[in-house]
Amino acid sequence: MSAKSITSHDVAKLAGVARSTVSHVLNGSNSVSLSEETRRKVQEAALALGYKPNSAALMLRKGTTKTVGFLATEAKSLAVDGYIPLLFAGVGEVLRRGGYHLLLETFDPAQKGNPYAGLVLSRRIDGLLVLSPDPQDAELRALIESGFPAVMIGSTGLPGEVSVSTRIGTSMAQAVDHVVSLGHRRIGCIPFSPAGFPASDARTGMLAALLADRGLGLDADAVEHAEFSAESGHAAARALLARRPDLTAVFAGNDTIALGAIGGAAAEGRAVPGDLSVVGFDDLPFAAHMHPALSTIRQDAMAQGRQAAEALTRLLSGTAPETRSHVSESTFIARGSTGPA
Amino acid sequence: MSAKSITSHDVAKLAGVARSTVSHVLNGSNSVSLSEETRRKVQEAALALGYKPNSAALMLRKGTTKTVGFLATEAKSLAVDGYIPLLFAGVGEVLRRGGYHLLLETFDPAQKGNPYAGLVLSRRIDGLLVLSPDPQDAELRALIESGFPAVMIGSTGLPGEVSVSTRIGTSMAQAVDHVVSLGHRRIGCIPFSPAGFPASDARTGMLAALLADRGLGLDADAVEHAEFSAESGHAAARALLARRPDLTAVFAGNDTIALGAIGGAAAEGRAVPGDLSVVGFDDLPFAAHMHPALSTIRQDAMAQGRQAAEALTRLLSGTAPETRSHVSESTFIARGSTGPA
Repeated sequence: MSAKSITSHDVAKLAGVARSTVSHVLNGSNSVSLSEETRRKVQEAALALGYKPNSAALMLRKGTTKTVGFLATEAKSLAVDGYIPLLFAGVGEVLRRGGYHLLLETFDPAQKGNPYAGLVLSRRIDGLLVLSPDPQDAELRALIESGFPAVMIGSTGLPGEVSVSTRIGTSMAQAVDHVVSLGHRRIGCIPFSPAGFPASDARTGMLAALLADRGLGLDADAVEHAEFSAESGHAAARALLARRPDLTAVFAGNDTIALGAIGGAAAEGRAVPGDLSVVGFDDLPFAAHMHPALSTIRQDAMAQGRQAAEALTRLLSGTAPETRSHVSESTFIARGSTGPA
Repeated sequence: MSAKSITSHDVAKLAGVARSTVSHVLNGSNSVSLSEETRRKVQEAALALGYKPNSAALMLRKGTTKTVGFLATEAKSLAVDGYIPLLFAGVGEVLRRGGYHLLLETFDPAQKGNPYAGLVLSRRIDGLLVLSPDPQDAELRALIESGFPAVMIGSTGLPGEVSVSTRIGTSMAQAVDHVVSLGHRRIGCIPFSPAGFPASDARTGMLAALLADRGLGLDADAVEHAEFSAESGHAAARALLARRPDLTAVFAGNDTIALGAIGGAAAEGRAVPGDLSVVGFDDLPFAAHMHPALSTIRQDAMAQGRQAAEALTRLLSGTAPETRSHVSESTFIARGSTGPA
């Protein structure tokens, strides 16, 4: 059954509701009171079947919504870390120029329901940017397979996706070589999120592999998970140094955690870089200007935001994308927060 | 002429265009090619007359847009400072609970055109949050007078507005008393924006008045303007200390600037707080956890975001607001970045 031949009747049948209910849900009508359960069933059925209500609706409006959705799956980080705001700034710059509006959606993984279906089927948006997509997310997979214009910031690895991502292998190897060349042998790590967040786990795994390549290990008790913020970095550094006072260098999952980790190290009587070297990640705009200036791995988040928005607006204008996978290089920058062991 | 009796005919007459053009512009139609100039004229005429196309459109949709706009007038700060993201987080929390979407609009003051008219008349949104409103902005005044549901974060001082703002007099006096009691007499200031930004100028004026009350001055050459970021704070601190090496304390316009100013002071050979005391503003989430922990004036940005969103959703649900002016107190928090002169 091709997507074009799918009707609201098929959606109604799969969802087990009346056809008029499908119409009420997908038109975003508020005139009829429907349970969240019913809405969800209809949305999921429509998405599963690849039903596209958009064309008729668009004709009715004589135009598109000229609105792009931005879905951030880790709402918590927005409040405490500067990475998502930088992406916004880049995305906003390109969208403004193209006459698009930006609809911002945040949700937490614990939240019930399919965040994609509601947003896509509501016809509030022409296209979607998805931050830190989870390759295991079946609903996101369905969205990508449905062909709805979407750009991943990060990557699911699925063949159908359009993605903007950063290669971190080379820069992390440079950072590890830098720290090892300074004489550090007992090295710890503060991932940017609790275990289970794919991008964070992948980075910890890569650090362990790079250290192993150099005859060093990343001991399980030398890893203390934080959660995006300086506060969590401060607490993690204190816990880590209390448990492993022999550590002389720490890789922080992001610059904000590194900032807090330097505070936490000070609270444990350790000066940075005299007693402890700290490496950040992202090169947020403050990193070069704090004291000590932060050694870190630079991802150009604003450029990444621009690139994602450009890829999406090209999809929306029907222009074939130059490439489906936009990959940027990251770079390691040595500054004052790393020194001899 | 009451707002209710205004028709698209009146708008067409004032704008000097055909009635069908008014309809094309206000329906957001893309089927007809119109110049930006024509769009602007129609939008401004509609806003000036208080024309409300919404009711008819809403009936057509059998519902509202369930979308709220957030207009940030300083797009630059979003990329480099954590205050707006914190507001977002608070706003987003309340809107999610109420089933509202958030449309994010940033514009720079240098930008041409009326940012309010396009957004309000596009019928993309039911209501609007306006950050750091400028009391001198005639277009914003027209919006407030039109009765469109809007909440200011900050205040224009206009009688018709609904606003959420922070009282800073008491906490700034406490901060000044704290610094003066530590023996500081030669005090500088790094405002968070170039001159001409009302909230920033007001704060500098208040600092000067508080110092004058205590028999101290704020010399013109002890003020060096920054622009939201750590980078600008770093540069301003270096310039300030090069020009006025006798300064022993500095008030920074925001915490991010304070973070950069501590870096800039270090670059000039000054330790904080040993050689220079630094006071921030906002108490961003990192302030308590960096080293030295930052003495600062706490505004609860997330709570302010929640309060603004609650005030707006009350307006939208037709519930009378509890009050039209929500005023929060700020508090001074002494930490490690201030010490004896």
